[in-house]
Amino acid sequence: MKTPDPRLSRRELLTGMVGVGAGATLAACGDSPLSDASAAGSDRVVHETADVVIVGAGLAGLMAARQLSARGRNVLLLEARERVGGRTLNRPLTAAGARPGTIVEVGGQWVGPTQDVVLGLIPQLGLSTFKTYNTGLLLDYRGGRSQTYGNTFPADPAMLGLNRIPPTDPVGAVEAAGAIMSLNSMAATVPLDKPWTAASAPSWDAQTFQTWMEANVQSQGGRDLLTLTIEAVFSAQPRDLSLLHVLFYIHSAGTLENLINTADGAQDSRIVGGSQLLCLKMAEPLQARIRLQRVVRDVAQDADGVTVSGDGFSVRAKRAILALPPTLAGRIRYTPALGGLRDQLTQRIPMGTVTKVQCVYPTPFWRDAGLNGQATSDTGPVKVTFDNSPPDAHVGVMMGFIEGEDGRRALGQTREQRRQGTIDSFVRYFGEAARNPLEYIEMSWSDEEFSRGCYSGYFPPGVWLDYGSALRAPIGRLHWAGTETAEVWNGYFDGALRSGERAADEVMAAL
Amino acid sequence: MKTPDPRLSRRELLTGMVGVGAGATLAACGDSPLSDASAAGSDRVVHETADVVIVGAGLAGLMAARQLSARGRNVLLLEARERVGGRTLNRPLTAAGARPGTIVEVGGQWVGPTQDVVLGLIPQLGLSTFKTYNTGLLLDYRGGRSQTYGNTFPADPAMLGLNRIPPTDPVGAVEAAGAIMSLNSMAATVPLDKPWTAASAPSWDAQTFQTWMEANVQSQGGRDLLTLTIEAVFSAQPRDLSLLHVLFYIHSAGTLENLINTADGAQDSRIVGGSQLLCLKMAEPLQARIRLQRVVRDVAQDADGVTVSGDGFSVRAKRAILALPPTLAGRIRYTPALGGLRDQLTQRIPMGTVTKVQCVYPTPFWRDAGLNGQATSDTGPVKVTFDNSPPDAHVGVMMGFIEGEDGRRALGQTREQRRQGTIDSFVRYFGEAARNPLEYIEMSWSDEEFSRGCYSGYFPPGVWLDYGSALRAPIGRLHWAGTETAEVWNGYFDGALRSGERAADEVMAAL
Repeated sequence: MKTPDPRLSRRELLTGMVGVGAGATLAACGDSPLSDASAAGSDRVVHETADVVIVGAGLAGLMAARQLSARGRNVLLLEARERVGGRTLNRPLTAAGARPGTIVEVGGQWVGPTQDVVLGLIPQLGLSTFKTYNTGLLLDYRGGRSQTYGNTFPADPAMLGLNRIPPTDPVGAVEAAGAIMSLNSMAATVPLDKPWTAASAPSWDAQTFQTWMEANVQSQGGRDLLTLTIEAVFSAQPRDLSLLHVLFYIHSAGTLENLINTADGAQDSRIVGGSQLLCLKMAEPLQARIRLQRVVRDVAQDADGVTVSGDGFSVRAKRAILALPPTLAGRIRYTPALGGLRDQLTQRIPMGTVTKVQCVYPTPFWRDAGLNGQATSDTGPVKVTFDNSPPDAHVGVMMGFIEGEDGRRALGQTREQRRQGTIDSFVRYFGEAARNPLEYIEMSWSDEEFSRGCYSGYFPPGVWLDYGSALRAPIGRLHWAGTETAEVWNGYFDGALRSGERAADEVMAAL
Repeated sequence: MKTPDPRLSRRELLTGMVGVGAGATLAACGDSPLSDASAAGSDRVVHETADVVIVGAGLAGLMAARQLSARGRNVLLLEARERVGGRTLNRPLTAAGARPGTIVEVGGQWVGPTQDVVLGLIPQLGLSTFKTYNTGLLLDYRGGRSQTYGNTFPADPAMLGLNRIPPTDPVGAVEAAGAIMSLNSMAATVPLDKPWTAASAPSWDAQTFQTWMEANVQSQGGRDLLTLTIEAVFSAQPRDLSLLHVLFYIHSAGTLENLINTADGAQDSRIVGGSQLLCLKMAEPLQARIRLQRVVRDVAQDADGVTVSGDGFSVRAKRAILALPPTLAGRIRYTPALGGLRDQLTQRIPMGTVTKVQCVYPTPFWRDAGLNGQATSDTGPVKVTFDNSPPDAHVGVMMGFIEGEDGRRALGQTREQRRQGTIDSFVRYFGEAARNPLEYIEMSWSDEEFSRGCYSGYFPPGVWLDYGSALRAPIGRLHWAGTETAEVWNGYFDGALRSGERAADEVMAAL
């Protein structure tokens, strides 16, 4: 096994542009003595110590490290990849015409109102936001034809302020809006800390969202719109999800409008320079305490502490925070083995399925046609699009999601097939000008070994009821973070950061 | 890391009674040269080679090894535990009065008609069967009182031959029987090789079994009986399961009666000496090719072969068979990383939840009361019982299952709490004579690091539709086995064995 370079340069940390194992040498670190005297060659193990070891340098792990460091604790943050950022990742554009340094985000990217922790962090890190492009008409493609519409829901704009429910099928749109009102009411009764204690939890967690929809939405148009909503929010199908989980998730974000709206919703704003800067900026002052390319394989705890190890490294600490999705936390080997309830929980929170695709054009030509670039569609593979151009729009970037069952189908395709499917979708919505992009960018998060899906883990039926209590409960010296553990804005940047804060608080109280 | 003893004695292999790491020394094996000359002390790695490396020495892995060896292939079978047998495990009784060598099975134990592969194997291995004790009345506990009944369904014995549907609530019993007839009819339309291609698959895989039951069974009594049926067959709740999966599973076994019946059903017969003998006997001629205490952590394939490794060992082969539940196969690290579809499949097949409990008494006293020891109940923790006495009944063994949500609740309890709950249940059904067992035996399969649940993995809604194609599809040099991959008697011994045969056939065709 290759022992990775435990310290990468600031440039490498920032860009993530490191050749894995490419001639990396073992650098002795100030606080990482090579104490395994008998080791030689490829069997060297770097031993380090810390007050708290954190696994996963995404938003949750970095926030936990930041909080603990600020309170004087010595942390070590282990990251499997050659970069920090988890499910955030900036990628430079290479298209001719794109200014050097221009990036697109191939992972999570938006922030919006009520996401108070991330909104508070942005200025602390010297970052700023700009509004998601939202000027002009939306477009809906349905039954073989396109229709444009204005930026509020026409049936009763005051009612919901929905701005992604197309009125193409008026009956369906009205019914979908009514269903959303019902869902919001139901969601408000789900306790965010213990969803399984909701009065109707036994019934709501016994059915899929699909079942609820079929019983409560009669028109095909209404069902199609709700299906698209679920796909866009969860990157899963309505049949995959517990109704209780959907309601919890809605309440966690406030309302379903908050989840789906662009202006004033979860897609309201973007971060100048790209969302990965949240992680890169948090990582900067922690640089000496971050170890990249450290794939954690074992976590062992005893009366005195916890040892977190993998090929070529070992960290001893008083407490550990596991800041990664439950399904990945379940792949680590624990000593003593975790109890059955926690382990079986990790068998039951699968990740969503999404490939994010983007095409770069000389200009955002759809703007000239009076469109804001936001399309919805009944035809895949791309059923939801956004204008993802840089703030100054010196090139145009059209972005789309291949989600849920479309996303699963895409996993069996070649990159060229996905590229062609993407371009066909973009042409369908925005015309022949979309035919020949300067650059095609895709990111399939399910194929990423250290994410294994996006946007986040979701709960199938029955899981909240029988396993919910194991989601955050510390086990000895082990604490659990990650956006899947958040009460507020679960699944989003904000939830990830809140989970890091919460785990740091737990550790501070226990140290 | 401790390097395990790669070869255990026949006695150890047979009993599984090995102290893990207790003074084990590294024995050089004829075909396992210590080729890592630079290694020293705890970093020694044993390198071996084979035509085919098989991971998991349960029924599936052993059958694959047996088949390939019989066809002249050189195999190596790696097992994480200190014993073979997987989810079969004999445990000696220690109670005074139990003859030395008397065992009970704490894992899977029964075989029945149409399980042709296991029924064919039993005499090949020099083993024999005896009938599950089934003489006398059954007992049903419901609404606070017990009622006994005869061994056929009274409403219309010719109709189904059901022998575990109590008539305590006649309306419920008739409705449950009608539902079972409907389920059998639906199940017959589900193709065993491709359940997602059933004409109604999109609808059936979009709902939980609970949803179907609520729509099709009106009486509470009928629902209670079907719920108990699901709990007993899947060790999960009706809300956890896709209706399509339940139908596939029924078809895989033939009918629902086959799944739940004692006589002529899946609980028809037991194996003299205990079911683990199936594995122990298969292991005997393979002994030189089995390596215990080898926890596989990495599987790497390249153009020339596959390398399977873990702490202290490495095996190079042409092909690999992964004969373990999908959720555990997903915890291995693969190089190159597996594609997203296969990986996400492994995130979506959780294991059932069951603790098998047994109490030993001086005699099977319930027989004297005219009872066959088979109880059903609406009150936990034990809702299903069997007489599990040895063939000569020189002691009495009452066995029960703590399943589904009861099983999950039990995971948070102490052994003493579970013991008390078990005894309370047995007293409730069979009277005060059950109060003071000579011995209490429990096995919580969810706590077992190398099973993580029983009886098998199940499919929540949506999984068959979008991921079914990845269940058996080989990936390069990797082949998948285990009862979860079986078309016939999925979840049972027979399915496990069939999966081993099928994987061996795949490998033979590819070598």
